[in-house]
Amino acid sequence: MEGTTLGWMQDEVDHFGFNTDKTFKQRYLIADKHWKKDGGSILFYTGNEGDITWFCNNTGFMWDMAEELKAMLVFAEHRYYGESLPFGANSFKDSTHLNFLTSEQALADFAKLIKHLKRTVPGAKNQPVIALGGSYGGMLAAWFRMKYPHMLVGALASSAPIWQFEDLVPCGVFMEIVTADFRKSGPNCSESIRRSWDAIRRLTSTGPGLHWLSEALRLCSPLTNSQDVEHLKDWITETWVNLAMVDYPYESNFLQPLPAWPIKVVCQYLKNPNVSDPQLLENIFQALNVYYNYSGQVKCLNMSETATRSLGSLGWSYQACTEMVMPFCTNGIDDMFEPHSWNLKEFSDDCFKQWGVRPRPSWITTMYGGKNISSHTNIIFSNGDLDPWSGGGVTENVTDTLVAITIPEGAHHLDLRANNAFDPTSVLLARSLEVRYMKQWIKNFYASLRKKH
Amino acid sequence: MEGTTLGWMQDEVDHFGFNTDKTFKQRYLIADKHWKKDGGSILFYTGNEGDITWFCNNTGFMWDMAEELKAMLVFAEHRYYGESLPFGANSFKDSTHLNFLTSEQALADFAKLIKHLKRTVPGAKNQPVIALGGSYGGMLAAWFRMKYPHMLVGALASSAPIWQFEDLVPCGVFMEIVTADFRKSGPNCSESIRRSWDAIRRLTSTGPGLHWLSEALRLCSPLTNSQDVEHLKDWITETWVNLAMVDYPYESNFLQPLPAWPIKVVCQYLKNPNVSDPQLLENIFQALNVYYNYSGQVKCLNMSETATRSLGSLGWSYQACTEMVMPFCTNGIDDMFEPHSWNLKEFSDDCFKQWGVRPRPSWITTMYGGKNISSHTNIIFSNGDLDPWSGGGVTENVTDTLVAITIPEGAHHLDLRANNAFDPTSVLLARSLEVRYMKQWIKNFYASLRKKH
Repeated sequence: MEGTTLGWMQDEVDHFGFNTDKTFKQRYLIADKHWKKDGGSILFYTGNEGDITWFCNNTGFMWDMAEELKAMLVFAEHRYYGESLPFGANSFKDSTHLNFLTSEQALADFAKLIKHLKRTVPGAKNQPVIALGGSYGGMLAAWFRMKYPHMLVGALASSAPIWQFEDLVPCGVFMEIVTADFRKSGPNCSESIRRSWDAIRRLTSTGPGLHWLSEALRLCSPLTNSQDVEHLKDWITETWVNLAMVDYPYESNFLQPLPAWPIKVVCQYLKNPNVSDPQLLENIFQALNVYYNYSGQVKCLNMSETATRSLGSLGWSYQACTEMVMPFCTNGIDDMFEPHSWNLKEFSDDCFKQWGVRPRPSWITTMYGGKNISSHTNIIFSNGDLDPWSGGGVTENVTDTLVAITIPEGAHHLDLRANNAFDPTSVLLARSLEVRYMKQWIKNFYASLRKKH
Repeated sequence: MEGTTLGWMQDEVDHFGFNTDKTFKQRYLIADKHWKKDGGSILFYTGNEGDITWFCNNTGFMWDMAEELKAMLVFAEHRYYGESLPFGANSFKDSTHLNFLTSEQALADFAKLIKHLKRTVPGAKNQPVIALGGSYGGMLAAWFRMKYPHMLVGALASSAPIWQFEDLVPCGVFMEIVTADFRKSGPNCSESIRRSWDAIRRLTSTGPGLHWLSEALRLCSPLTNSQDVEHLKDWITETWVNLAMVDYPYESNFLQPLPAWPIKVVCQYLKNPNVSDPQLLENIFQALNVYYNYSGQVKCLNMSETATRSLGSLGWSYQACTEMVMPFCTNGIDDMFEPHSWNLKEFSDDCFKQWGVRPRPSWITTMYGGKNISSHTNIIFSNGDLDPWSGGGVTENVTDTLVAITIPEGAHHLDLRANNAFDPTSVLLARSLEVRYMKQWIKNFYASLRKKH
């Protein structure tokens, strides 16, 4: 975004141990065009699993309200993502180097950055700070307020699935929401997808079938064996999931460049489930092509990428294998996918194979409280009903000051995106309510500051 | 204490990193004689820097109120103390082995232990837990409620100097309170001590003087050089500090076996500051002898020990060199000691020499909020006015639910000790107020539990 200043803070690699004094450079961006030292505020984006410039460019809401809140905008990059690499090119080398990639270390980085800014930016010292974030960044915003309430007056946690852990919500709810999105977006749409899995199985049972399907789907690397077929199905599944996340009401480019309401566009190709297997897969190709080739420039579909490279998929894979253990499952009945139960043992073995670590599935609820969060205050949990992550989110008020805002026409953290002429009323209402809460927190902060003096 | 059951829980050595899966055995004690599954509670002692059996035996208040609160008593040992050694005999070997000795790791141990007990002890699951602790254990109790409010309904933090960090309180306040205790306990008492330092300097300026003083003080190892003299002064200083901490109204044995109001007894020997240097030091010997030889069995005074061996002085020295950086200073005017300013650089260098680590003096306030703790709830901070640690404690209400209780005649966490016929009224009042708060927390817990069902 225009008008941002790049900053680097020297930070401890390990906040929770003293054996190493090693530090690294954490990146952050600041925009202070509308900031007022008198009565202003600091909006602090708790960076998640990606390049911070990308989040900065996709969090227009902060820019849109900066003037009204007289706010300095700070975008803090999460360690191990973007250019905030504790061990440079070696950061992902092995579990020793990855040992400091945890949410607790990231929150401590944020806390130290706020202290650093308050100490070094003239006028920032006595200003209220609000944390904002979306998705994992939304979890971090909420957890930041829970764990460091002395640093913040409140937090906006957008599309933050803080309950997508252990058995806090049913493991199937995520894929059920994905399915509902497709069901609602066109006649027979989810049914066509549901039938595609068997069609793929039948088509790929022979060598010529494998070849035919590789051609039909314009795959960059042809399918050669049953392992490739499993990979194909995972890739297609992830595509539908991603479409559900970014089913925005206008043309956008978050995970991929896409048309407005992309699932509706996809579903135009999937109106008829009662066709031959090859025809069904031709239709699936057209649907995938909407997601992977909206520009029309793509020559073949690449199964090794499903989203923007700005996301740090490597780092997230490690986090999912350690703290961020989110159980997912499908049954093929309430959802349009092949049945898969959640298998922790298998998951753990895969993690050990890939990273040399084993997940601790109960740790996050031990640390952050699971459903018992009512003693905290001043957190807004916003969720879009179209967003599969809303299934693990807080969608009902917990208390008067732990409030839920739902956006019926919203996908993944739509409220954090810039104002748009095609925004549905529900997201405009959500944003205005969010601003109202934030202004109240800021007002209360200054009132209690005056009382002290 | 009678009726305790010993327990061991297998726990992660590193809660905050996944590179190691190593576990260790954490010790805890349980007493459930008065526990009721119906309407009961769990009182959870957050163990501090010592053997848990010793704290268990010196926290009679928990035993005294068990019946009234229908409480299960749990005493959790702090890692690296007593028998809860992550690397057995090697735990203190070097900074690599000590890397997991932090307050954050200890709190995570406590959180996991509570989860473990709720899962494994039939009837414990839906019971309210209250954390209690004294001194560093009191800090842990308060921090536990701050960081894991979902685990606790409240905390009693007795004599917890959570503000003895950075510049939250003046560095001189601790020694001023020690001095005040001696000043109030006998005429000229603090003045005699104040003059003793110069007398020691003069006496030890010659070889025969060193010899004479070693004899006069019945030291087990004679003084041979100026370094020994510095050590002597530190040892005497620590003795006065310890006496201020355990200036209890009755005969007791916490740090050492002592008579009732030991400082009064000490001060009987220190009535006249206007005597010759040798006479003054003879008097100092009598005073020291009260602390080190109340039993009358001790043949010589040992400068290498100032308190019970149940305290893990090695572990605490490491903690003071890492997180628990408490600035102390004296000026010789407002206190009875030789002037010493707080020198972080020197302190840090000493730490590096001893442990190979450097302190991070601002970390504790970053982590636990310093003076900005008003968003937390349900913590009682109790302090005795005689206790030097009260200088860094919370001695005024922060909010309606972060309350301070002061005990004018109280030394270090007197309120946690067993009921005694010689208890001053002020501590009886404090304890009854504490019980009232706890009963209210328990009542509110059960009320909200009923509301849920």
